[in-house]
Amino acid sequence: MIIVMNPTATQENLMRVEKKITDAGLTFHLSTGSSRTIVGVIGDKTTIAGLQMNAFDGVEKTVRITEKYKLVSREFHPNDTIVDVDGVKVGGKNMAIMAGPCAVESMEQLLESAKCVKAIGAQFLRGGAFKPRTSPYDFQGLAEQGLKMLREVGDKTNLKVVTEILDVNAIDMISQYADVLQIGARNMQNFELLKTVGRSKMPVLLKRGISATISEWLNAAEYIMSEGNYRVIFCERGIRTYETFTRNTLDLSAVAAIKELSHLPIIVDPSHGTGRWKMVRPMARAAIAAGADGLMIEVHPHPEIALSDGDQSLTPENFKIVMDEVKQIANVMGKE
Amino acid sequence: MIIVMNPTATQENLMRVEKKITDAGLTFHLSTGSSRTIVGVIGDKTTIAGLQMNAFDGVEKTVRITEKYKLVSREFHPNDTIVDVDGVKVGGKNMAIMAGPCAVESMEQLLESAKCVKAIGAQFLRGGAFKPRTSPYDFQGLAEQGLKMLREVGDKTNLKVVTEILDVNAIDMISQYADVLQIGARNMQNFELLKTVGRSKMPVLLKRGISATISEWLNAAEYIMSEGNYRVIFCERGIRTYETFTRNTLDLSAVAAIKELSHLPIIVDPSHGTGRWKMVRPMARAAIAAGADGLMIEVHPHPEIALSDGDQSLTPENFKIVMDEVKQIANVMGKE
Amino acid sequence: MIIVMNPTATQENLMRVEKKITDAGLTFHLSTGSSRTIVGVIGDKTTIAGLQMNAFDGVEKTVRITEKYKLVSREFHPNDTIVDVDGVKVGGKNMAIMAGPCAVESMEQLLESAKCVKAIGAQFLRGGAFKPRTSPYDFQGLAEQGLKMLREVGDKTNLKVVTEILDVNAIDMISQYADVLQIGARNMQNFELLKTVGRSKMPVLLKRGISATISEWLNAAEYIMSEGNYRVIFCERGIRTYETFTRNTLDLSAVAAIKELSHLPIIVDPSHGTGRWKMVRPMARAAIAAGADGLMIEVHPHPEIALSDGDQSLTPENFKIVMDEVKQIANVMGKE
Amino acid sequence: MIIVMNPTATQENLMRVEKKITDAGLTFHLSTGSSRTIVGVIGDKTTIAGLQMNAFDGVEKTVRITEKYKLVSREFHPNDTIVDVDGVKVGGKNMAIMAGPCAVESMEQLLESAKCVKAIGAQFLRGGAFKPRTSPYDFQGLAEQGLKMLREVGDKTNLKVVTEILDVNAIDMISQYADVLQIGARNMQNFELLKTVGRSKMPVLLKRGISATISEWLNAAEYIMSEGNYRVIFCERGIRTYETFTRNTLDLSAVAAIKELSHLPIIVDPSHGTGRWKMVRPMARAAIAAGADGLMIEVHPHPEIALSDGDQSLTPENFKIVMDEVKQIANVMGKE
Repeated sequence: MIIVMNPTATQENLMRVEKKITDAGLTFHLSTGSSRTIVGVIGDKTTIAGLQMNAFDGVEKTVRITEKYKLVSREFHPNDTIVDVDGVKVGGKNMAIMAGPCAVESMEQLLESAKCVKAIGAQFLRGGAFKPRTSPYDFQGLAEQGLKMLREVGDKTNLKVVTEILDVNAIDMISQYADVLQIGARNMQNFELLKTVGRSKMPVLLKRGISATISEWLNAAEYIMSEGNYRVIFCERGIRTYETFTRNTLDLSAVAAIKELSHLPIIVDPSHGTGRWKMVRPMARAAIAAGADGLMIEVHPHPEIALSDGDQSLTPENFKIVMDEVKQIANVMGKE
Repeated sequence: MIIVMNPTATQENLMRVEKKITDAGLTFHLSTGSSRTIVGVIGDKTTIAGLQMNAFDGVEKTVRITEKYKLVSREFHPNDTIVDVDGVKVGGKNMAIMAGPCAVESMEQLLESAKCVKAIGAQFLRGGAFKPRTSPYDFQGLAEQGLKMLREVGDKTNLKVVTEILDVNAIDMISQYADVLQIGARNMQNFELLKTVGRSKMPVLLKRGISATISEWLNAAEYIMSEGNYRVIFCERGIRTYETFTRNTLDLSAVAAIKELSHLPIIVDPSHGTGRWKMVRPMARAAIAAGADGLMIEVHPHPEIALSDGDQSLTPENFKIVMDEVKQIANVMGKE
Repeated sequence: MIIVMNPTATQENLMRVEKKITDAGLTFHLSTGSSRTIVGVIGDKTTIAGLQMNAFDGVEKTVRITEKYKLVSREFHPNDTIVDVDGVKVGGKNMAIMAGPCAVESMEQLLESAKCVKAIGAQFLRGGAFKPRTSPYDFQGLAEQGLKMLREVGDKTNLKVVTEILDVNAIDMISQYADVLQIGARNMQNFELLKTVGRSKMPVLLKRGISATISEWLNAAEYIMSEGNYRVIFCERGIRTYETFTRNTLDLSAVAAIKELSHLPIIVDPSHGTGRWKMVRPMARAAIAAGADGLMIEVHPHPEIALSDGDQSLTPENFKIVMDEVKQIANVMGKE
Repeated sequence: MIIVMNPTATQENLMRVEKKITDAGLTFHLSTGSSRTIVGVIGDKTTIAGLQMNAFDGVEKTVRITEKYKLVSREFHPNDTIVDVDGVKVGGKNMAIMAGPCAVESMEQLLESAKCVKAIGAQFLRGGAFKPRTSPYDFQGLAEQGLKMLREVGDKTNLKVVTEILDVNAIDMISQYADVLQIGARNMQNFELLKTVGRSKMPVLLKRGISATISEWLNAAEYIMSEGNYRVIFCERGIRTYETFTRNTLDLSAVAAIKELSHLPIIVDPSHGTGRWKMVRPMARAAIAAGADGLMIEVHPHPEIALSDGDQSLTPENFKIVMDEVKQIANVMGKE
């Protein structure tokens, strides 16, 4: 941590700052410029992280030098992590395709979706049984009945099942049916939920929060890993900006940022990331070209009658077109 | 809902849209302009809310006319609601002052804070026993031990206790000790938690999400009210923007927006809203002048040794200065 | 400037960084922590500002400690500046009220507006003769004809005239008619225009850019002052955020920030800042309570027939109500 | 335009709204729902655009259905436009590569850069002679001397010259030396400058404003085209968001949006778009995969001694790596 004293700070102000640092078992260097003194704090990262220095008289500002996360960082673990989901691998040279409807609506809809996405190349079936909805009056999902359908259809079509968990108390039930637990954007900083999935043995798909910084996202993954669960996959799904033409602004530079800062795999969801089905095609290509390890795409056999997010779902025909192009890009990127 | 057909939409496209509307038990009006046909959908609000029309061929865009929330809206309930917390009133001509440390750290710290804020005019003691922290390695709060201190100190000083709930399973425990349950910014769309406090009999302080729209915030309150709990107080605490000088951008126009759209009371937290203790004073005055029903302010007897958010906490001396000015503004506003 | 070397930086990397610093005539301090070396650069502020260190191998990041602006800073000039506009003062204990229509439309409209705002307490008449409009097909203003009306009406009603300059070549013409030159939000970083008004002898009202940081805004004022013009007044007019209920998000914490960092006066425009006339009233009160030195408010005798921004204009009746309340708040703030 | 009356609107309120519409020579349809009446306005697009209806009593809100731009829209011109720069084509199956240093610093630097980027595949040399800088104390460019170098080096290496115009009065001088005029992000809504380049015969590269919406960007291009200049190329260069890890957030969905709404070509600047040279490589690939017609990339022979933006410049070696990968992606996209 760097502490910048303001130009009017007194010698006594500085001494009190120094005392606080040494009392915490840390050391420091002084750097005295023409108008300001700068204090560099040295020592244990976690102890430094706990220092609250802005409240001291004479302190102009403080600057943190190191991030608090460890287990997620590439500094800690230089090689790419490959997450194994019962034999299906995410990361490295693998291209993970997770596809299916936004919400599970019926056995027919789900089976039709699953057969189609399997045939076109997906390894994972996505579908929500519990839906987080802005209004309490919107369709909230089929709950356990939906989970049963997901498992049955997943087994029939040989697809791994990815589904969202909203409630800490549902962990045992959902774990019976799912292969990957999804943490949705609204829950990225629901720390109880992060700790709960961290204590489970299930792989976790961690979506980026609606306005989460890269650093907050990495720290959310650290919550999961610090409980002992190392199978975490990031999923970029668009962030909130002032732009209204798209539902969110898909931030593909996040793929490059995560690859630089962390060893964990990252996939991209262009369906939520744009909110417009016509944009899924170019953004899916761009995501893979940016270095993503896979895609999560909403596919619905009949988007115009979907109970949720029909606006951004692809028909099977369009999903086929997208995947054909994506495979060519993946080929350039050295993915199999 | 208004459906805008695109200029190349065919007659068949339009007929399929019309059929979807009438199949849903709704009616419509056509308005045919020079280049586009516009379809106005009429009928039950909730049914309309469920329509997914963008996936239809020929549809350019859709525009929602009405919001989905009802119970929170001023349209539904024209007069201001006054929330009664065991005799202390929030809303109307009352000025609610909630003050205290960010986190409960010890009996001494809490009691010293409480006596001071009580003497200066607060009716509520704030303090976190469970702290949502970005990093898993930061201080997470004293848990039930902290709740016990809050209750004991609240009783001793005759202050109502406001404290945050993070975990649905903690509702019974926290309800034993607290007078008001706080939903923090990161949990504003943790719908399980909203439903849980909605089923309790406790007043709820609902902080605005870090990047929540006014509409999402009102819908979050609707989740609580739709479970039968009508004692909801909004709390504006700053939103995330590109500006880095302040921790958040305190959005005081949200006070005016909530007053226009809803009958529920709203208070403002200038401590989190700015993240800089020097700014609490002007922003506290401005909040009351904007029409807020009260304030939530961090006060710590010794901010420089606080375990959490010392950077934005006021000393008792500064809190006194702020309150003296705030009372004069409140007087102009007709508050008592 | 602080340079953070990354954990894998070599001794040679560090030596090249050190050489660059000493070659620039600067000195440095090293602070060697457990995993990273930190280099504190010391010396002339402007020389440091010109250093580009991120391109060096082994550099993880750089952190700027000091801002580049000087003349605008309170550090440089501790006392509040009062800008004198031919005898009417802005700043200090004075309350500057600038009011009038968004655009000058006709002599009748302007005179009616001016008489009304004068009677209610304004000292300045605002009105655009050149209007920056998003679309080329929108009303662009009456140009010099509008300026003549402004001058004539200003003289008749004894109001100072504030009007916007869009074009560097119009400086002489506009200066003949206006008392204060306004730089609009879209031109806050039109550096040619800033230098042009900097070389004039006219007071300048500098609106905050649509998404300008506080630091960029101060630097824009520095452009004006560095050309020799010290009569600069800031005007907060709302920033762009994700919120769509309001046209912009009025950032009243900017008032407190400017007061802390600069000695120049600042006023607030709640009309553009919210885009909704109903919100002008609470936000005008809040602006003064936050410490603003005045207000800029759109008033139109007949908002429903205004050619520009009728949605956010007050009727004379409503302006009267606003001003009555504002005066009471100003009184509390020690303004005259 | 759709006008939504509020539930308490009276019959008289409605009649005044209707009168305003018919007085403007427009017609309307009423759609009466359970709680609200909705008025659909029909007629000439430009006349409708000028209506100011929110100021009327009883009006809850208005919704615009059509955009104001025409010449830029794909609706108006369904086929892709290919911009011809003296024989070098931008758009269609062509890949335009614009590369070179941020600022022109010396003949040696420029010539070395130009030879390198030419050899690696660029057709355009970029370089600023006039630099818009946040602080007046930063390097502002070599002015006409820099332009002369650009022309001489462009001729020597057979590269077209792209350079930024900041000042309307510099149009004749710059046009002597440049092949393409660049409008920078800070000037995207400098309407005088847009009209000036619109009246010239030079191709224009229009960068997206720092926080411009897609709609504002298209309207800015409309300003240029409405003056008779049809050779406009868009350039996405990142938008301002809350994220601080990158300098800007590169919005590649803007490529898809522009392709959907307009017939004009669009290129991407990943150097400014990320501000980090390590991210240029993945984002350049992603831009082409998203459908961009080309790239603008900062290349400097010695980034660590660059006078401007060294942090985001590539060395020639890294530019070569980027271009090799980009060509493979371009190949998949059917670009030559």
